[in-house]
Amino acid sequence: MGLLRAAGVVYKPVEQLDLGPDSNEIYVEADIKAPRMGGLLAKIFAWILESRIFGALAFYILKRLNRVHKFISNATVEEPPMFVPLHPYVDLDEQEVIEIDSDASPAERVQQAMNCLPLTSENSLDAFKFSCFRRWTIADYSRAYRNGEITPLKVAERFIYAVHESSSRPLSIAFFINYDAEDILRQATESTLRYERGAPISALDGVPIAVKDEIDCSPYPTTGGTKWLHKVRPCTGDACCVARLRSCGAILVGKTNMHELGATPSGINPHYGPPRNPYDPSRISGGSSSGSAAVVCAGLCPAALGVDGGGSVRMPASLSGVVGFKPTFGGIPHSGVLPLNWTVGMVGVLAGTLEDAFIVYAAISGHLPSHEPTTLPPKIHFPLLNSTNPISNIKLAIYGEWFNDCNEEIRLCCSNAVQLLCERYNWKTVEVTIPELEVMRLAHYVTIGSECSTALSSHLENLGRSEFGWDARVVVDIYGAFNSNEYIKAQKLRYRHMQIHNKIFAKADVIVTPTTGMTAYSISKNALKTGELDYVNGGTIIRYQIAGNFLGLPAITVPVGYDKAGLPIGLQFIGKPWSEPTLMHLAFAMQALCITDYRKPKVFYDILGKK
Amino acid sequence: MGLLRAAGVVYKPVEQLDLGPDSNEIYVEADIKAPRMGGLLAKIFAWILESRIFGALAFYILKRLNRVHKFISNATVEEPPMFVPLHPYVDLDEQEVIEIDSDASPAERVQQAMNCLPLTSENSLDAFKFSCFRRWTIADYSRAYRNGEITPLKVAERFIYAVHESSSRPLSIAFFINYDAEDILRQATESTLRYERGAPISALDGVPIAVKDEIDCSPYPTTGGTKWLHKVRPCTGDACCVARLRSCGAILVGKTNMHELGATPSGINPHYGPPRNPYDPSRISGGSSSGSAAVVCAGLCPAALGVDGGGSVRMPASLSGVVGFKPTFGGIPHSGVLPLNWTVGMVGVLAGTLEDAFIVYAAISGHLPSHEPTTLPPKIHFPLLNSTNPISNIKLAIYGEWFNDCNEEIRLCCSNAVQLLCERYNWKTVEVTIPELEVMRLAHYVTIGSECSTALSSHLENLGRSEFGWDARVVVDIYGAFNSNEYIKAQKLRYRHMQIHNKIFAKADVIVTPTTGMTAYSISKNALKTGELDYVNGGTIIRYQIAGNFLGLPAITVPVGYDKAGLPIGLQFIGKPWSEPTLMHLAFAMQALCITDYRKPKVFYDILGKK
Repeated sequence: MGLLRAAGVVYKPVEQLDLGPDSNEIYVEADIKAPRMGGLLAKIFAWILESRIFGALAFYILKRLNRVHKFISNATVEEPPMFVPLHPYVDLDEQEVIEIDSDASPAERVQQAMNCLPLTSENSLDAFKFSCFRRWTIADYSRAYRNGEITPLKVAERFIYAVHESSSRPLSIAFFINYDAEDILRQATESTLRYERGAPISALDGVPIAVKDEIDCSPYPTTGGTKWLHKVRPCTGDACCVARLRSCGAILVGKTNMHELGATPSGINPHYGPPRNPYDPSRISGGSSSGSAAVVCAGLCPAALGVDGGGSVRMPASLSGVVGFKPTFGGIPHSGVLPLNWTVGMVGVLAGTLEDAFIVYAAISGHLPSHEPTTLPPKIHFPLLNSTNPISNIKLAIYGEWFNDCNEEIRLCCSNAVQLLCERYNWKTVEVTIPELEVMRLAHYVTIGSECSTALSSHLENLGRSEFGWDARVVVDIYGAFNSNEYIKAQKLRYRHMQIHNKIFAKADVIVTPTTGMTAYSISKNALKTGELDYVNGGTIIRYQIAGNFLGLPAITVPVGYDKAGLPIGLQFIGKPWSEPTLMHLAFAMQALCITDYRKPKVFYDILGKK
Repeated sequence: MGLLRAAGVVYKPVEQLDLGPDSNEIYVEADIKAPRMGGLLAKIFAWILESRIFGALAFYILKRLNRVHKFISNATVEEPPMFVPLHPYVDLDEQEVIEIDSDASPAERVQQAMNCLPLTSENSLDAFKFSCFRRWTIADYSRAYRNGEITPLKVAERFIYAVHESSSRPLSIAFFINYDAEDILRQATESTLRYERGAPISALDGVPIAVKDEIDCSPYPTTGGTKWLHKVRPCTGDACCVARLRSCGAILVGKTNMHELGATPSGINPHYGPPRNPYDPSRISGGSSSGSAAVVCAGLCPAALGVDGGGSVRMPASLSGVVGFKPTFGGIPHSGVLPLNWTVGMVGVLAGTLEDAFIVYAAISGHLPSHEPTTLPPKIHFPLLNSTNPISNIKLAIYGEWFNDCNEEIRLCCSNAVQLLCERYNWKTVEVTIPELEVMRLAHYVTIGSECSTALSSHLENLGRSEFGWDARVVVDIYGAFNSNEYIKAQKLRYRHMQIHNKIFAKADVIVTPTTGMTAYSISKNALKTGELDYVNGGTIIRYQIAGNFLGLPAITVPVGYDKAGLPIGLQFIGKPWSEPTLMHLAFAMQALCITDYRKPKVFYDILGKK
C-alpha cells in the first residue's frame, strides 16, 4: 500500500529482560503521530476515516506511523493471551490491617472504615479554623449533622443553589449532565428526619455524593456523555455501587459530566458543555470523569464516583487536585455500569481526602456473584490508618526515565514528595526498569478500542454516527479498525506485562510515578463545539495510567503540589493485586506530610460551612 | 460492496427462550456456502483469497453467504463476553464415585483407576476366547506381561513390524508422521527389565501409546501435520501429559498423523499421506486426530492421545469405531501442546474401550500451576465402574430436531441405543430445545480461526504460505479474515450459550447426540496431493461437537453400531462441567450393553495375541 510492510518486533523471553537500574532495555518515548484536531479538521478526519476508499488507507497509515504494526500486529509474542486481568487472591501479609467480615452490609463496612481512621477533633464548625485550605470531609458532614449544626436539607439547598449559580453565566461550568433538585431535596429530607430521630444509617447519611454519568443511578438516564445512549439503553435502576451508597444514606446528587463515551482524557463535552477546572476555569478538569473531579474539587461533594478504563478516575483527580482511587480489577461490582468495555474499566472513587476515598470504597466494594470465575479475596482487609505504628520497610519502585518523562515542575514536585516520604518513614526507593511501556499503552488502546467498538456496534448500525461529537466519532472510527489478530496479540502482551510487573513487585511493594505528564491544559474555543482530539497531550496525560487498567492493578493518586500557574500536581502509587490497604497507608502518609499548603480553587462552594 | 448490508439478529434475553420440547425456537440447519475443493480449485481459491483486490470482496461474500454478518458481526448481543470457558468447581454430588488424593502421582492414579474397574478374568491370552471381536485392553497387556506370556519387547517388535507393513504397499496407510524403532525398542527393553525384576511401575508399564503430532514427545519433532512448524518451533521435551504417561512406564510409540494444523475434520494430510480408516481404507478415519483414531482402531495401541479443538478427538474416534473422551476445559495441563488456540482446544484420549480411556485420563489429568486463575476441582472424583449399584435417575436431554439431523442409519442406530440404555437402567430422556446451535458453530469458528491465525501470524510473515497444503492454506486465509468486533461478539455468544446450556443442565444430567452426522466418507484422489476442503461434509461431521469446545464441556463418544457399509457409528454424551465420573458411568453402561457385535476392521494387527 505504498509503504513497506513494517517488520514486527520479536519479544525476548521475560526471563531474559533485565529489570534492574542498569538495564539495556531502552525507554521508548511515546511518539504519537496525530495532529491536534478540533473544529473543521476533526470533521474532515472523520469523513476520511469513514470513506470506503480512503478509510482503509488512512487506518493503515495511522497504525503504521503509530507503531501498531511494529509492536503488535506483526510482532512475535510467545506468551499466551490473558483476556481478563483477574487476580487470584494471595494473602499479602500486609502491615497494620484488620480483617473485615465479608458479609457485612455497606453501612457496617462504612462504620468499620470509620473505626480505622484517626480521631478528629469534635469541634463544631464554628470553632474549626483552617491553618491552610482544606475541603470538608465526610467526617465533617457526619459530625455537623449529628451535632445539629446543620441539616442535610440545608446542605442540599446550598448544593442546589451552587450548581445553579455555577452553571449560569459568567461561570458556565457544566458540572452535571443531569441533576434533579426535587429528588435531591426528597433524599435530604429523609436523611434530616433520620438525624432528627437520632438514627442516621451511617457516617455517609446525608452526605452528598455525585455519580459519573456512566453509572446507573435512579431517577436519571445514563447518557455516557452522549446525546443518544440513554435512549437505546434505558436506565432501569441503581448500579450495584450506587445502591450500596444509597443504602448507607448518602444523598445522590446527580450525574456528573464526562467525556463522551470516555473517549479522551480532556473531559470536554461538546453536548453538555465543559466541566472546567475549578483551579482555573479556562482549563480542562481532566477526563473522562471530568465532572466528578470538578465537583469534588469545587467543594460540592466530598466524594464522587468515576469509572476508570484508561486512567479516567486518576487523571482528572490529579489535574483537579483531589484523591483518585482505582481498586484491583473486579473489586467493585460492575453491574449497572455502561458496558463500554469488559476487561479494563471499573468503578473508582474521587474524594477530597484519602480518608473519604476509603470510606466510599468501604461502602461500594466487595463480592457480587458474577459470570466470570471470580477471584475476589475471601478475606477483606482494611488499613488501620489510626495505628500508632507506621508501616515499615516499604520499598517504592521508581523507573527513572519514565518517572522523569513529564514536565519539569511535575518532576521536581513528585521527586521531592517521594524523597520526603521516604525520609520521614525510613522507606526505600528501588531503581527499576520497566520495559515496553509504550507497547503496553498501544496494546491497551487496541483492547479498549476493540471492546468499545463491539459494545457500540449495534447502536452504530441503527444510529449512524451523526449523533456523535466529532471527537468521539473519530475515536469510535479508529476503535473499529482492529482485526482479531491485533486484539488477541494485545492480550498476549497483557500476559507478558503481567509477568514483567510481577517481577517488579518481587523487588518492591509499589511503583511510584507522577500521575500525569502535564498539568491541566487550556480549553480551545473550537473544542467547545466539536469536541477536541488531542492525542499528543492525551498521551502525555495518560502516560502513567495503563498498568492500572490493562493489568487490573490497584492505583491511587494524591495531590502533592502545584505548578507555577497554580495547577495541581498528583503523585501515583501502583500496587500489587489486592494490596489496597498498603496503597491507602502510603497515600495517607503522603497526604499527612502536608508537603504543600493546599490551595483553594478559584471556584469553590462552602456547602457545609456556616454562612 | 454490491450486496446489501446484512441486518444483524437481535438476540432475545435467555430468560425469554423456551427450552422445552414445544418451543417456537426454530432449528436452523447448517447452510454452508462453499464448494468442495481439491486440486486446482483449491489453488485458485487460495489465490483469490490472498489477492489484495479480490480478497476483501471474497471474504465479504463468504461471511455474508455463511451468515456470519447476520448472526455475529452485525448482531445485537446483550451478554458480556466469556473469553475462556473455565468453570468454577461445584460439587455435583455424583453417584458411585470415590474421591482421589489430588497429590497422587500419575502411577498412583492409574492404580486407583484400576481399582475402580470391574474384575476381569485372569485367564491367559491362550484361554481368552472372543465371543465377538474386541481389541486388547490395557488390562490385557498388563496381565499378559505380569503372567510372562509376552514381553513389552516382543510387543514392540510386532508393533514396529506392523507399522512398517501397513505403511508400505499395498496398504500405504500413513498412521504415523514420525516413529523411531530404536527409541521404541529402548523403552520396551527397559519395561521388560522392570517386569523381569517384578517391579512394573503401573498397569501402563510396557503398554504402547501413540501421541498426536500436535503434542510434544521426545525425541520427535512436533509438526502439527505441517512441513515447517517443527523447524520454527523445536520440540524441547515431553508435554506434561506425555511426561505423565512416561512416568507410568508407557511406551510412547510415535507421533500420529493428523490434518495439517487440525484444519478440517477429514484428517487427510497431503504431506505425510492419508491415515485411512481401518474399517475401509478407501475412506477417511476422521480428523483432525486421524492417526490416533486409526492406530487404536487397527489394534496398534490400546490408547492414543489427541487434541480436541473442534471435535478433533471425538469425530475421528466415532468414524473409526473407538472411544473418544474430551474432559472439561482445563482438566488436562496444556503445556507442551502446540499453541494453535487458547480457549477451545485441549488434550483428549482415544481408546478401544471406556476403561482404557479412563486409565489414560487418570494418568494425565489434574492440576498444574497455570497462568490463568485456575478453577480445577479441589476434589477429584473417579467413577466406581465396578459398583454393583448402577447409577439411577439419570436424565438424558435430547433435542429431537438436532439429534435427527443426521443420516438415516445413524439416527436409527443412535435412537435405538439410547432407548435400550434407558430401558435397561430405567433412565429417562427429556425432550429439550437448544436454540441457536448454528450460531454457536459460527461463533466457535470465528474464535478458533482468529486464535489460530494469531498463533501462526509471525510464522506466516516469515514463511509465506507456500509451505502449506492448499486446503490448510485456504483455511488459514479465512481464519485471518475476522475483525476484533467479530471475535469479541463470538465471546459474548459464548457466554450466552453457556447460560442456555446451564438451563438445559438444570433439566437433565447429560445431553445425548449422535457423535457425527455421517459416517466416514471416501477419500478423493485429488485430496491426496492438495488436501481437500469440504466444508459441507465437514459441517455434517462437526454438527454435534461445538459445545464440548466452545463451552469447555466434557464429552465422550462410544461406538454403538455400524451402517450398512460396515462403517462405525458413535453416540455422544455431553456433560456438565466437571461431571466426568457420570459421563464415564454412562459411556460404560452403553458399552456394556453390547448392543452390537463389535466388528473387526479390515486392517487389524493382533499386537498382543500369540501368533
